[in-house]
Amino acid sequence: MKTNRVKWLSMKALLSVIFCVMCVMSASAQQKQFRLDELIGGGDSYWKLRPENVYTSWWGNIALKTTPEAVYDLNTGKEILSVEQVNKCFSEKVVFSAHSFSFPFPDEPVVMFTKGQRRIMFDFHAKRILSDITLPQEAVVRDFNLKTRQTAYTVGGNLYVYTEKGDTLQISKDGSTDGSDNIVYGQSVHRDEFGISGGTFWSPDGKMLAYYRMDQSMVPSYPQVDIKSKGAVGDGSRIAETYSCHYPMAGEKSHYVKVGVFDTETQKNVWLHLVGEKDDYHTNISWAPDGKSIYVFELNRDQNHMRLVQYDVATGNVMRTVLEEKHDKYVEPMHPLTFLPWDEEKAVMQSQRDGYNHLYLLDLKTTALKQITSGKWVVQEFVGFNTIARRIIYRSNEADPRKSCLYSVKVSGGKRTPLGAEEGVCYQAQLSKNGASVISAYTAPDVPRSINQLSTTTGKGMNVFTAKDPWKENGYSVPTFKSGSIKAADGMTDLYYRMVLPADFDETKKYPTVVYVYGGPHAHLVDASWHWSSRGWETYMAQKGYITFILDGRGSEWRGRDFEQATFRKLGTEECKDQYKGVEYLTSLPYVDKDRIGVHGWSFGGFMTTNLMLTYPDVFKVGVAGGPVIDWNYYEVMYGERYMDTPQSNPEGYKSSNLRLRAGNLKGRLQLIIGYNDPVCVPQHTLSFIRACIDAGTQCDYFLYPGGQHNMYGTEAIHLHERITRYFEDFLK
Amino acid sequence: MKTNRVKWLSMKALLSVIFCVMCVMSASAQQKQFRLDELIGGGDSYWKLRPENVYTSWWGNIALKTTPEAVYDLNTGKEILSVEQVNKCFSEKVVFSAHSFSFPFPDEPVVMFTKGQRRIMFDFHAKRILSDITLPQEAVVRDFNLKTRQTAYTVGGNLYVYTEKGDTLQISKDGSTDGSDNIVYGQSVHRDEFGISGGTFWSPDGKMLAYYRMDQSMVPSYPQVDIKSKGAVGDGSRIAETYSCHYPMAGEKSHYVKVGVFDTETQKNVWLHLVGEKDDYHTNISWAPDGKSIYVFELNRDQNHMRLVQYDVATGNVMRTVLEEKHDKYVEPMHPLTFLPWDEEKAVMQSQRDGYNHLYLLDLKTTALKQITSGKWVVQEFVGFNTIARRIIYRSNEADPRKSCLYSVKVSGGKRTPLGAEEGVCYQAQLSKNGASVISAYTAPDVPRSINQLSTTTGKGMNVFTAKDPWKENGYSVPTFKSGSIKAADGMTDLYYRMVLPADFDETKKYPTVVYVYGGPHAHLVDASWHWSSRGWETYMAQKGYITFILDGRGSEWRGRDFEQATFRKLGTEECKDQYKGVEYLTSLPYVDKDRIGVHGWSFGGFMTTNLMLTYPDVFKVGVAGGPVIDWNYYEVMYGERYMDTPQSNPEGYKSSNLRLRAGNLKGRLQLIIGYNDPVCVPQHTLSFIRACIDAGTQCDYFLYPGGQHNMYGTEAIHLHERITRYFEDFLK
Repeated sequence: MKTNRVKWLSMKALLSVIFCVMCVMSASAQQKQFRLDELIGGGDSYWKLRPENVYTSWWGNIALKTTPEAVYDLNTGKEILSVEQVNKCFSEKVVFSAHSFSFPFPDEPVVMFTKGQRRIMFDFHAKRILSDITLPQEAVVRDFNLKTRQTAYTVGGNLYVYTEKGDTLQISKDGSTDGSDNIVYGQSVHRDEFGISGGTFWSPDGKMLAYYRMDQSMVPSYPQVDIKSKGAVGDGSRIAETYSCHYPMAGEKSHYVKVGVFDTETQKNVWLHLVGEKDDYHTNISWAPDGKSIYVFELNRDQNHMRLVQYDVATGNVMRTVLEEKHDKYVEPMHPLTFLPWDEEKAVMQSQRDGYNHLYLLDLKTTALKQITSGKWVVQEFVGFNTIARRIIYRSNEADPRKSCLYSVKVSGGKRTPLGAEEGVCYQAQLSKNGASVISAYTAPDVPRSINQLSTTTGKGMNVFTAKDPWKENGYSVPTFKSGSIKAADGMTDLYYRMVLPADFDETKKYPTVVYVYGGPHAHLVDASWHWSSRGWETYMAQKGYITFILDGRGSEWRGRDFEQATFRKLGTEECKDQYKGVEYLTSLPYVDKDRIGVHGWSFGGFMTTNLMLTYPDVFKVGVAGGPVIDWNYYEVMYGERYMDTPQSNPEGYKSSNLRLRAGNLKGRLQLIIGYNDPVCVPQHTLSFIRACIDAGTQCDYFLYPGGQHNMYGTEAIHLHERITRYFEDFLK
Repeated sequence: MKTNRVKWLSMKALLSVIFCVMCVMSASAQQKQFRLDELIGGGDSYWKLRPENVYTSWWGNIALKTTPEAVYDLNTGKEILSVEQVNKCFSEKVVFSAHSFSFPFPDEPVVMFTKGQRRIMFDFHAKRILSDITLPQEAVVRDFNLKTRQTAYTVGGNLYVYTEKGDTLQISKDGSTDGSDNIVYGQSVHRDEFGISGGTFWSPDGKMLAYYRMDQSMVPSYPQVDIKSKGAVGDGSRIAETYSCHYPMAGEKSHYVKVGVFDTETQKNVWLHLVGEKDDYHTNISWAPDGKSIYVFELNRDQNHMRLVQYDVATGNVMRTVLEEKHDKYVEPMHPLTFLPWDEEKAVMQSQRDGYNHLYLLDLKTTALKQITSGKWVVQEFVGFNTIARRIIYRSNEADPRKSCLYSVKVSGGKRTPLGAEEGVCYQAQLSKNGASVISAYTAPDVPRSINQLSTTTGKGMNVFTAKDPWKENGYSVPTFKSGSIKAADGMTDLYYRMVLPADFDETKKYPTVVYVYGGPHAHLVDASWHWSSRGWETYMAQKGYITFILDGRGSEWRGRDFEQATFRKLGTEECKDQYKGVEYLTSLPYVDKDRIGVHGWSFGGFMTTNLMLTYPDVFKVGVAGGPVIDWNYYEVMYGERYMDTPQSNPEGYKSSNLRLRAGNLKGRLQLIIGYNDPVCVPQHTLSFIRACIDAGTQCDYFLYPGGQHNMYGTEAIHLHERITRYFEDFLK
């Protein structure tokens, strides 16, 4: 459920800033109450109450600080370039904010910025335009190459390159020019799973473009409906229409992906002769540094056998299988090779083959794989290299499963150096050109935001900025945020929770309590960022007199392979047991009212919410399930089959996790909410559940956001959370 | 909103049986409480509590009484034919119930019945099969001709005739054989408006077939989605699909209708050269008694100019325009010509040209039109002729606007003879072959069911059956049903209401009160049938302590042209004012709690419910709007343009009635409920309203019935009413 994960990660990044270190913090006498739009993203009132920020970046090895008006040297304070300076070199206003500036070349006074579909490179010393490209209005995916200044872009299903010479070359040429989306070029494939986020890959010299081609003509389209609520009168455009949305459901026919390589000089195209079956996954593409070959992580449809394959770009032929990885549950390649800048024969890769995601050094000559990091913790992000000290910079949760801190390590492994204090969650790490220095931004439970410039060798450095607590500064009544751990249903594994208590908390009272849940792979909700990563809505609920409780059970991320794979082929079963452990803990607390326990979650969390309501109908009185999976038969091939195999090979797993078959268990109040146009958990999930409730004679509630996708943003998210709150106020208060 | 009307009329027919005459009736000491499935149609428990019935019909001039096992002479009690008798003449069981028997020929011992797609005519004296036709499994519309025993039927968009000789002739031959529904033959057209309910018309001798052909290729299809919740695994049929549902929206392109005449002997086809524009309406087709010409009521798209046109069947040419009718608002032909059995040059027709729907005698020779009935009341149904006394039998509300009684009158007009007492509502009138005798079934507020066999000349006769009150007989606690009148918002017009009070009503208490509303044309809710036509749900609500109140405002049916047309070009405006008058009356009653007034309605009543919630946000606290129109822009051409003209010609009317534009007024609790596949008020109405609420920052609630159409039936209706009740219990109690 990639989309959800993206949302959740970005929210986490936003919600990062002060309170107590790992424990309780009470704020009582303050009186100011939050409005929902001050707590949920989008509008001005929200941003006014966010922790203050300083915007940093790099120009080669010069650290920069940017305001809307100008860019300054972070260390000297000297102005480097202002918006005004640039604009006066043009006949029209081309820049509105310095935040759009970037400095792509370490040693050249060149600024790059975009304005609509226009991309400008400007020498601000010589006051000379180096390039000024305007792409067609409909261009979507854009991949600009710094070396050649060529841009790959897509329009509909077609792929084009705007060349150095100003020509437009169409790469897609096999009948997809009709604008249909049956065959799409240059876009992300495999539904953004396996770490895939784009469909074009420039060669190191910027002259050749590798790209995905996806044939999805054999995959049915889910009938998404555009209700055109703003359609004009009399032009025939009033009536609703469907639009195409290919959706391969688990166990059904999947799309076929090919990889092409286009030479922009000769305009010749070569197709890689990909190994495996037509519906295998071809992921994490990287070019060899010499530009003569391409590495692809190929995964069979069953997702339990991965091969790293090298292809000859000149012929498309397989050169060799560099390495393989198998697992009886699944293997999930998520990262391409990253070659050492100082040794073209060696690359860093990531794997959880020892049970935890770690860094490995792959020798491409010998195919020897050497583990760089190890331990019962995971590498969360490969950040880059210090090319001087030849170290790797990465983020991991070595310090605590809830933390995410920066470290550096030698390529040969060994001692890991923390960069800065091992505190909280680093949400942004910007490396200088040579990687010797990093600007790291983190938050911790009591730190709204801290930005530091650090040596990646020593880990020492200086504080750039520390934000004050904007809530306390503005006199708001702030709830209490706590975190702790309990044992999972297996009796052994530590699970971490956070808990939010009303500001005027009185432990002699009984509070209604809402469990907020996600519970699926590739996400977790409890981390050591500001307020223990508590979401604004939890503060809103605390203000209304609710306790909220959030537990990361087995199946969630960053706890290692076995922790995640405990749910294999039976999604929802172990996860519910762990959440129930959370409820047992809650009901052991004197101030939790066991007759007023609710549950809420979105996406996988919507599946969990519905599941919990149906599994423990006497425990959970009220639930709000957003964008839920109801039946894994309706979920897509890539994510679904990884965790559930196919309906054909795992009928009992699909049956036992099919919530539709348990609609008759519904006892409490359950509201299902979806984006009417959700392309991730398609409306068929909730619609079929409603059908099942009607047939079983039970009553669920329902709402949908016409035009809405898998998640809501901005004012729509505010409306949504008002709605969710109202439901608990109606039935749990 | 034809579909609703059909539902409502059939419900009225079902809900016909005992209480007090025009006033209060209190049932107190009884204790037995109704379950919802005992009050709402479909299941066994409902039928057990319906008034007992006796099933009657005619064999020529012999009155019959039918039980599941056999048919008897109603007057002598002698058995005429049993199921067993018929079955033993066949090698297999062909009949399961005598209710499927009919006796098509007055003087012949012939029984006709169907079994699946098989239609059998059997001489039960000679024990001989006269005809035994089996149509294809997919045959839908079936039109059997008694004279030639030929059957017209449709499969998809195609029209066929199964001939006397056993041949199958395909009449549709212009490319519609591809199974598309762009061009459909032999089906009802113009969305069942203008009294149209079929698409085939046999000539008097049964040798020629007139039929509709509708080209709707220019009309976009509303994207209805089949969620296939029972789709199998692995066969690719799991994913939802759209299906075609052409829907011409007001002011947009409409379909084109033609009329063909097919000669089954020569197999030649003639198209009538229809007058008017291509998108005109061609309604109420009738054959001339000599089979040489056809009469069609043609109406322009603006619906304010009607012409009765005679066409020559041999050439398709127009012979003449027999008469015309115009009105500055609209003219609405609803009934074909009916020729006098004893004079082929004269026909009875209906018109509200004098302001009320009455019978007219049309002289086809002179085109003179002579009014047969007149007065400030309406003819509700032309029933047939007494060919001996040369009288017309019809239903009208002459006795009281809420009643519907049988009368007979001479063709020359004059004195009208009531057939039986002028009591209640006649819901079924079966005429003998010669029309001298009628079996009339009626209910009245205190009469659950009364069946009488009457002379159509004298109006006298005998009681066949009178049902006891099944509710009282079974010891149920029965609420009080009342009816009365108030003045409309115009200060002059009488409007009738009914009101249901809890069985243990105590006028010193304050009761929450729910207004149930329809309010649109071609329907009314208050009539003098059993319990003042109260619906089962009202009794359920009474049992839960609510008063329900139902008022037929201006715009509703059977009160004459001006009463209905008061709402022209501004649907919803006057109707709301009248409903508000009802609320003023309610709040004048000491026992109505003015702070707990709710509203509920379906279809046009859903439009009214939403409208009332938005127009009087401080009056109505809770509303449940089912299958509502939200924006007449999204409603269809035929019904919509009749009352609203087009969006192009009446922009202000469309704007002021567009509830989406007032979504910000929402204050109380409003739940919208639709059939997810509603082909009448398409989902775009509610979806666009939800969108508007989200944009305006207001909260409405929503529910839908996947697979549901415009109305719910059976167990689905029970689920629906449980849902509606729960909403009032949640928020109005």
